Amino acid sequence: MLITGAAGYIGTRLTQRVLTDPAFAEATVTIVDTTIRNQGSGPRLRAVEGDLRDPGVRREALGSRPDIAFHLAGILGGTAEANYALAREVNVDATLSLFEDLRDEMKPPRVVFTSSIAVFGPLDAEGVDDDTRASPHMFYGAQKHMMEIALENFSARGSLDGLALRLPGIVARRGADARMKAAFLSHLFYAVEAGRDYTLPVSADGTSWLLSVPACVDALIHGALLPRGLLAERRALTLPALRVSMQQLADALSKHFQGSVARIDYAPDLELERQFARQPLLVTALADELGFKHDGTVEALVRRAIEPQGPVSGQFAQRDDR
Amino acid sequence: MLITGAAGYIGTRLTQRVLTDPAFAEATVTIVDTTIRNQGSGPRLRAVEGDLRDPGVRREALGSRPDIAFHLAGILGGTAEANYALAREVNVDATLSLFEDLRDEMKPPRVVFTSSIAVFGPLDAEGVDDDTRASPHMFYGAQKHMMEIALENFSARGSLDGLALRLPGIVARRGADARMKAAFLSHLFYAVEAGRDYTLPVSADGTSWLLSVPACVDALIHGALLPRGLLAERRALTLPALRVSMQQLADALSKHFQGSVARIDYAPDLELERQFARQPLLVTALADELGFKHDGTVEALVRRAIEPQGPVSGQFAQRDDR
Repeated sequence: MLITGAAGYIGTRLTQRVLTDPAFAEATVTIVDTTIRNQGSGPRLRAVEGDLRDPGVRREALGSRPDIAFHLAGILGGTAEANYALAREVNVDATLSLFEDLRDEMKPPRVVFTSSIAVFGPLDAEGVDDDTRASPHMFYGAQKHMMEIALENFSARGSLDGLALRLPGIVARRGADARMKAAFLSHLFYAVEAGRDYTLPVSADGTSWLLSVPACVDALIHGALLPRGLLAERRALTLPALRVSMQQLADALSKHFQGSVARIDYAPDLELERQFARQPLLVTALADELGFKHDGTVEALVRRAIEPQGPVSGQFAQRDDR
Repeated sequence: MLITGAAGYIGTRLTQRVLTDPAFAEATVTIVDTTIRNQGSGPRLRAVEGDLRDPGVRREALGSRPDIAFHLAGILGGTAEANYALAREVNVDATLSLFEDLRDEMKPPRVVFTSSIAVFGPLDAEGVDDDTRASPHMFYGAQKHMMEIALENFSARGSLDGLALRLPGIVARRGADARMKAAFLSHLFYAVEAGRDYTLPVSADGTSWLLSVPACVDALIHGALLPRGLLAERRALTLPALRVSMQQLADALSKHFQGSVARIDYAPDLELERQFARQPLLVTALADELGFKHDGTVEALVRRAIEPQGPVSGQFAQRDDR
């Protein structure tokens, strides 16, 4: 098994999970990231520290041909906007090269690629479903969408067995970097936990598509284990997500942290409101049929989103926005 | 004005056209190709011989910032299948870099990019319209589709004013290279003209989407001159094409060359039939609304497809499949 971006917010939790899940007891796991820190050790874990833009690093990472590759490494939204050249190199050039390097017509590996709802661009108020045309506005979304097409093409050709999963907002990112435009969603959780007042930059009835980080890791694992025969021509799926209003989320958090004295205010910023809090009805029939699931209720979302996340949590929390 | 792939089958004709069309009397034209031969000269024409993979060649080509850029250079279908690495370098890496180099937020240039119906992959028998999902099977089609997304993204960002036109089969390519899978469509024209018997590798009732090369050049010019305000979010359009059966085409050719004694037989090859002769109903509402047109009738298609094509015709006819 290969995990790229393994030191990131989702990558650390995915790595922990595959090293402890009995389903993967036999798996050797190669983790790759630009900086690998305390992520455990042992005969089943092989760490490659380096940049996937370097062909030598990709070669080392693929040394033992993986049966399953999770490709999480990438330059996320805000950073990609600020540094287009870097984002192209990582999100397009290195990602396409990694997919090429992974190709194996005799034994096509399952490649689970984290795409994003950013592929949609401005969302139509009427709702989004599996037939909604991708029309990305952010560079990040366009780059993810191009790579979905490459992954689907290599899958159609039988040299990869790919699955691009479009992630919604993943919460709660402890210490989420303020440069991350969606950081307020995570900050809200920890403000209420700490009893600190917090002003959300979106309106109370603004709605977002959210998934807790454990549910996200579940989805990645589920995607890795889906029998190949269940996957049709379409290899890019929008993951189910709970659509919640900010008010619902704040109420559920207050209820969860019963002693909390935090006061939540709303001072909407039009740009953030448009981008993160006007998410319409979401219908994910293809992913639902394949057994992907969101957190179910806002109470479960809150509970799971703030579960203790093991010894490595927090440490790399800002890396996803590097 | 910039024309890449200017020495190719369509590029030579487009170059001739812009140098003689009164609408462009004031335009200075920079043509780029790996080998430039006799394509005229004069103060309005600047030729850059070189490979667009080379940043220095792109820099030279963009020396005088173009208002209009036609990006025709590319590695076509059969060659891309045979040489994936080259196709990635030209169709993805160099094309994306060219789009980046062309970006200009103060004065976004109109970029007309030749895409292809290969973006669709296997065609649904029920028909194709503007909402048909692109699901390319050939590498070529996937690469074109990725670049459509980049072009649309840069257009949404206001740094380019792009238009990707998906070309159907363009006829008739004199001396079309037999390595070109669709060469038979062009060979048919010249066999009937010469009174030679010809066996088509598809069935008599097989149907193809066709456009004559002058109609294709008209479409590129029309795309270059469309007022920006008419172009909405969607920047990749399927061009109108005449859908004709092989029998209709053979009959029209025999009628056109009245003295022709050629006998046309049909020995269908399943692969070619699937790829080129099962093209279903085509509805191109978006392009129709914008005033793009196909040849109108099979008689006009035949007549225009074999019009004399000036002093440079033929000379570079095989280059498109390099």
